[in-house]
Amino acid sequence: MADIRKPIPVEKAIEYVWEYRLNGEAEYISINDCDNRRLAEDIIANHPVPPFPKSPYDGFALRSDDTVEASRDNPVTFEVVEHIGAGEVPEKKLHKGQATRIMTGAKIPEDADCIAMFEICDTYEHENSSYMSIKRKMEPNQNIIEEGSEVAKGEKLINQGTLINPGTKAILATFGYNRVKVAKKPVIGVIATGTELLDVDEELQPGKIRNSNAYMITSQIIRAGAAYKYFGKLEDELNTSYEMIKQALNEVDILITTGGVSVGDFDLMPAIYEKLGAEVLFNKVAMRPGSVTTVAAADGKLLYGLSGNPSACYVGFELFARPVVQHYLFNEMPFLRRVKAILADDFSKPNPFTRFVRSYITYENGNVHANLSGIDKSNVVTSLAHCNSLMVLPGGTRGFKAGDEVEAMLLEDNQGQAGFLAE
Amino acid sequence: MADIRKPIPVEKAIEYVWEYRLNGEAEYISINDCDNRRLAEDIIANHPVPPFPKSPYDGFALRSDDTVEASRDNPVTFEVVEHIGAGEVPEKKLHKGQATRIMTGAKIPEDADCIAMFEICDTYEHENSSYMSIKRKMEPNQNIIEEGSEVAKGEKLINQGTLINPGTKAILATFGYNRVKVAKKPVIGVIATGTELLDVDEELQPGKIRNSNAYMITSQIIRAGAAYKYFGKLEDELNTSYEMIKQALNEVDILITTGGVSVGDFDLMPAIYEKLGAEVLFNKVAMRPGSVTTVAAADGKLLYGLSGNPSACYVGFELFARPVVQHYLFNEMPFLRRVKAILADDFSKPNPFTRFVRSYITYENGNVHANLSGIDKSNVVTSLAHCNSLMVLPGGTRGFKAGDEVEAMLLEDNQGQAGFLAE
Repeated sequence: MADIRKPIPVEKAIEYVWEYRLNGEAEYISINDCDNRRLAEDIIANHPVPPFPKSPYDGFALRSDDTVEASRDNPVTFEVVEHIGAGEVPEKKLHKGQATRIMTGAKIPEDADCIAMFEICDTYEHENSSYMSIKRKMEPNQNIIEEGSEVAKGEKLINQGTLINPGTKAILATFGYNRVKVAKKPVIGVIATGTELLDVDEELQPGKIRNSNAYMITSQIIRAGAAYKYFGKLEDELNTSYEMIKQALNEVDILITTGGVSVGDFDLMPAIYEKLGAEVLFNKVAMRPGSVTTVAAADGKLLYGLSGNPSACYVGFELFARPVVQHYLFNEMPFLRRVKAILADDFSKPNPFTRFVRSYITYENGNVHANLSGIDKSNVVTSLAHCNSLMVLPGGTRGFKAGDEVEAMLLEDNQGQAGFLAE
Repeated sequence: MADIRKPIPVEKAIEYVWEYRLNGEAEYISINDCDNRRLAEDIIANHPVPPFPKSPYDGFALRSDDTVEASRDNPVTFEVVEHIGAGEVPEKKLHKGQATRIMTGAKIPEDADCIAMFEICDTYEHENSSYMSIKRKMEPNQNIIEEGSEVAKGEKLINQGTLINPGTKAILATFGYNRVKVAKKPVIGVIATGTELLDVDEELQPGKIRNSNAYMITSQIIRAGAAYKYFGKLEDELNTSYEMIKQALNEVDILITTGGVSVGDFDLMPAIYEKLGAEVLFNKVAMRPGSVTTVAAADGKLLYGLSGNPSACYVGFELFARPVVQHYLFNEMPFLRRVKAILADDFSKPNPFTRFVRSYITYENGNVHANLSGIDKSNVVTSLAHCNSLMVLPGGTRGFKAGDEVEAMLLEDNQGQAGFLAE
């Protein structure tokens, strides 16, 4: 009982973990599978966009010089010598008095230097030839989208570490990235500990509850962009647990256990760390929930001992594991985006430790509001379902009132930020 | 050329599409595969949480009556008759002067009505028996988490249509949902049209560009929560295109084509709609980009004719297809969440049509800012990669200035809203 642990500040705990972050590896995958992966290289334009001068409209390509005499009272007539759609290549170079009928996106014919939209042209047929006439003067380069005017060759378009969204995928396709160099997903092992745990398909039994933490964590791992390997649940028995954890460590990049990190008679993780020869980075953090969150390092791998309490487990993952995953994924903004928000509800419970309170963000008139997502008993699982952010309430003796400015860490945001604290 | 189309307001276009929305179907999947799917039923607590009275601390369970005489100067001593951890079932009913050593999460023994934390107890051994003593009076129900105190049996926990996030998955596990009833993903067919299109693995050729829209759209489909079936790209040739589109319509719930909807000489979609006997709901919308966006209905299915222009294609999907997918997925908040934001940059281009401008959201001091994500030429693809929202700039002759209040539709938000317009 007398195992007195000294709590360290959250920032300090993150510093300790950060020293053991691993750099990720890259792999090539098909563009068809790249959604929501992160780029493992910068994307550079390997050709100009557009790759040739093209027409923004349906109309006629012609030489502006030929229109100098054109006016309302003096239409100038051109012979239409070719008709091209997008994807076709103009074969005829234009000479004086000639025009090419051209569609949006098609390549500008040689020696044409402007496009007259259909709306300002008249057309007619005469003796099997086509003609168009125009009543106004055109300027050189008028309505021409120049080669490279959107993107110059060699321009850096997207940074390494960027999450691939629909726009990114479009760019990858544009530049011919049939295979995409992305960050390999780190594999995170998950083991739930606790004699009280039933499998999800088991009937309830007296004194027991179903294992929900393992499912929650696998979902958090997926949201973070990593892959998981679930090793099952363990009863609170030292040798079996030690063997399983030791073996699991060999098969994964990061290992997460839930439960067994407190100081109860059956909390075995401290003994297991010792037996593994793992370095315990910390075992008490000045935060609620999750003060017993423990992180150790063994063989250069991080070994997270998250609390068996669902809320504490949830917060422990988001604070200490998710940024490490993001770093592995080449993300240069690996921490959760933290924004200022107006507290929407009273939160009267004072606590000496920093609180990370389940909340959801709403917007009112351009302001960000942070709302409590349900009762915040640390053992209530239901409020986790509605939360998309964690409010950060600094430790102290006072509570907080609706209208107070608070900070909130966004859980469903893809942008992130460079460091843990507010920027 | 003289095909004059009458533009209709965006809201009206959405109304037309909305009449053809389909209701979704449900399917059962393993809890292991349920992340980011949407629930097809309400989740009701099928047992109370906790399912039995339990201890929030490591300590001793005892009868508060037995402590009435306890005080600083008068410790009361108990015989420790049992020792239980979480998951174990207490076998001994407590009699006067007896206590049970109990760990966090364990079931309260019969006739115990309070928990004394270790910190306030002394323990000792005597003649092979264990004893504890306490110097203060305990109250009935002190430190007992009552059965059902977190969730009552029968309570509705999560609504049908909710996206399954880590917290939701935890609840599903808690209540034994080994298989989860989720919304089936609608299958959306994708066909890119345009003689100018190369495959992503082809070398550039004069006058041609790589097909990026199909890849972009598949990514938007995934983000919307649907599945896609890609039928390939078509040259601008009427009969082949008609046959392919007709066949594709049979195999999908919704069909999207890109390109061919304008009034150019090789824009075949209008003729194809006619040949299909499809009802064209609209073919001109008062918006930029994407004014030529066309939606038709054939055999009760929506047939989206999105522009071949990447930005117009992107916006057309988000405005007209994504809400329909969300409805199919049982989401009662099927439209993009629209928030007020401060315009971060000048936007001087006036336009009579409503603009949907690619933007990204930042937060400053609790305010939402909408920033232009790159040059907004409607044919520039690169700015799509950085956008996470669409600014809505009402049509009119004036431009907008930094600091103006605008509305922005959030593209990476899971909450949504009930209708298209700002709430």
